[in-house]
Amino acid sequence: MSKIVLKGDIVFTSSKDRFETYEDSYLVGKNGKIVGIFKELEGEYKDYPLVDYTGKLIIPGFVDLHLHAPQYPNQGLGLDKELLPWLNTYTFPEEAKYGDLEYAEKVYRRFIKDLWRHGTTSAVVFSSVHKESTKLLMDLFIESNLRAYVGKVNMDRNTSPELTESTERSLLDTEEIIIEYRKKSPLVKPIITPRFVPTCSSELMEGLGRLAVKYGVPVQSHLSENKNEVEWVRELHPECKNYASVYNKYNLFGQTKTIMAHCIHNTDEELDLMKNNRVFAAHCPHSNYNLSSGIMPIRKFVERKIPIGLGSDISGGHSISMTSVMVAAIQASKMYWLYNNKEYKPLTSSEAFFFGTKGGGSFFGKVGSFEADYVLDALVIDDSDLGYNNGLNLEERIQRYIYNGDDRNIIDVYVEGRRVEEPK
Amino acid sequence: MSKIVLKGDIVFTSSKDRFETYEDSYLVGKNGKIVGIFKELEGEYKDYPLVDYTGKLIIPGFVDLHLHAPQYPNQGLGLDKELLPWLNTYTFPEEAKYGDLEYAEKVYRRFIKDLWRHGTTSAVVFSSVHKESTKLLMDLFIESNLRAYVGKVNMDRNTSPELTESTERSLLDTEEIIIEYRKKSPLVKPIITPRFVPTCSSELMEGLGRLAVKYGVPVQSHLSENKNEVEWVRELHPECKNYASVYNKYNLFGQTKTIMAHCIHNTDEELDLMKNNRVFAAHCPHSNYNLSSGIMPIRKFVERKIPIGLGSDISGGHSISMTSVMVAAIQASKMYWLYNNKEYKPLTSSEAFFFGTKGGGSFFGKVGSFEADYVLDALVIDDSDLGYNNGLNLEERIQRYIYNGDDRNIIDVYVEGRRVEEPK
Repeated sequence: MSKIVLKGDIVFTSSKDRFETYEDSYLVGKNGKIVGIFKELEGEYKDYPLVDYTGKLIIPGFVDLHLHAPQYPNQGLGLDKELLPWLNTYTFPEEAKYGDLEYAEKVYRRFIKDLWRHGTTSAVVFSSVHKESTKLLMDLFIESNLRAYVGKVNMDRNTSPELTESTERSLLDTEEIIIEYRKKSPLVKPIITPRFVPTCSSELMEGLGRLAVKYGVPVQSHLSENKNEVEWVRELHPECKNYASVYNKYNLFGQTKTIMAHCIHNTDEELDLMKNNRVFAAHCPHSNYNLSSGIMPIRKFVERKIPIGLGSDISGGHSISMTSVMVAAIQASKMYWLYNNKEYKPLTSSEAFFFGTKGGGSFFGKVGSFEADYVLDALVIDDSDLGYNNGLNLEERIQRYIYNGDDRNIIDVYVEGRRVEEPK
Repeated sequence: MSKIVLKGDIVFTSSKDRFETYEDSYLVGKNGKIVGIFKELEGEYKDYPLVDYTGKLIIPGFVDLHLHAPQYPNQGLGLDKELLPWLNTYTFPEEAKYGDLEYAEKVYRRFIKDLWRHGTTSAVVFSSVHKESTKLLMDLFIESNLRAYVGKVNMDRNTSPELTESTERSLLDTEEIIIEYRKKSPLVKPIITPRFVPTCSSELMEGLGRLAVKYGVPVQSHLSENKNEVEWVRELHPECKNYASVYNKYNLFGQTKTIMAHCIHNTDEELDLMKNNRVFAAHCPHSNYNLSSGIMPIRKFVERKIPIGLGSDISGGHSISMTSVMVAAIQASKMYWLYNNKEYKPLTSSEAFFFGTKGGGSFFGKVGSFEADYVLDALVIDDSDLGYNNGLNLEERIQRYIYNGDDRNIIDVYVEGRRVEEPK
């Protein structure tokens, strides 16, 4: 039975509306879960192994609900283009390389190391269409002790020839991975990953929905990122009344837990469907800026209580840092507010932090908060080089860290109460 | 006579439309200025001292046209507010501390060190209203060997009582600094700095305009950052037809070279006045996002050939990194394009880089480019940890550095052909 106490300045968000702050306190964990936060240690907790981070911030690990591992080498490249030309010029050619396991290993080791370095303890990841390199990515995540859902991408139409699978092969490979990995690790799980409607035939989506329901495996995809994409889906599926209902028709929209990335150009009807089906929205502001996709009206999702997390969307997004994504989300919401009659109020710092921790974390379960019974996933932040702490309260320190901190400030990473070493 | 050769992968923008790239070449400097770029060294250049940065990028030093030194301790704080409440709650109370020279020195040393660390070799800086700490800031810049214009702020109305100067004192202090510093250093110069119209009486502005013309000293201020501010100026100056014409009336709008920060909500008539008077616009996208000010329609300025530079606007902007500001400028322009009928096309990477180097640099003279006769201000960038360089061309490497690099990648800084040591 693992026991641990972390001492420091503890900050988290159990609700989006405010930071909860515990100065110079003890975060107590047992069996990988939070017992509680205490000002003084009493009883048996006095005998737990204690790590003294006095003066440091202790916050929940970050959760990235949407990113593409095989696009990592394209980080920061090609961003003078919009989604569809960007896919064809940069993304598909890079993804085609992942039949080569040696290349895949080189990229994926670095990718996981960088997630660790930036404090992303839970990630929901697109792999490529390749079965073997997807398994490799899952094995490397297992080795790292970080938490992840990893999805082999499915595509049987409208992509480059090298990446086009037969419908049958796509389904067989997906099922093989599910069977092999669904119970292999408590931290790393498979997720069904139709890339997006344009690259998946109806037969493929039907088969994937069947697998999702059969094995109770979650689903991730993209929704309404770009207006040209939305129009394309309308042409491909005139029988469906909107983009979301194509996924819904094939049991890929909340029949098992589901994440849809972007959700910029949804109709109200689609938002209602997300709400009713408890579909998560992964908000990826950097990517949406970079690919000129638009601004997700996040307040509409908040008002409807649609579950929301944040995504770096590597490599449409250029930054794997979730604090950078939080800042971009706040900035995007301010522009949406300003240019839409000040109707939808901007995100506050605590809201952005919530979406990047507990909001996205709830896709995994009790993840992303320091309430009792949540998993003890934590980051230790040394913010002493960010300015002068005299007179700053914890709320100000966490805001300053969100805006001005980077990976250098993260000095330790914990998942389920255990310190995570730098991945190899 | 100083002579130097820097060898490496040379990238700059002599025009905004494309990166000029010279792989594995020699940048030759003499007396602090660029002689030229050569593929092979010939003649006397063979005898110049050579620094070998093979495989590294060599680019012009960055130029920050707008930031506030005394706001540095507020970096990343208070950004859940708009401009006017933010000024009153965070900014004015902080600026009031700079009567204390000991405090000022602590902050200003760190401020200059961080500019250096982030490769900003030329900066146009607001100080506070305080004469002595403004002189201190100028002396510290002189000691650093970085290039700067530094302005004592003028305010004789509508600010906090501690920061309100008498009109006479404000003018006397400003003139004293001009006389003492206009010939003290070739790199560090005074600039006349009415904070903005609302905090400067007509008498003060008239006096400042007189000083500007009398001594041929440049001017900086703020223009049309926030709609409430624009409305306030209209109420204060019903005799003037717009915000810009208030400055213009008092010889503070291009009569000597002038920078106006923000320029978000200008009328076409104001833009024409900027163009005719050759007034620089300092585009501060992070700040404009953070304070919900809006998006500067930068393409309109480009089309009119109004000179443009970028500003970090510390601490309305949270990041002192000019590459972060470049990315924000690109992202902002994409949203402006998308939400305004795709009329004003977004900035490309080379345009953003140009504005952050030669665009802003032209306020100083021949600064920000590697054309012959420009000053040799350069950064050496080690981008080897940003990914795999195999097969990437220099244009891709510079894009990736803009999006994903940070201060760690800057391994050496040169101003006028001399290596600049870390400021103390």
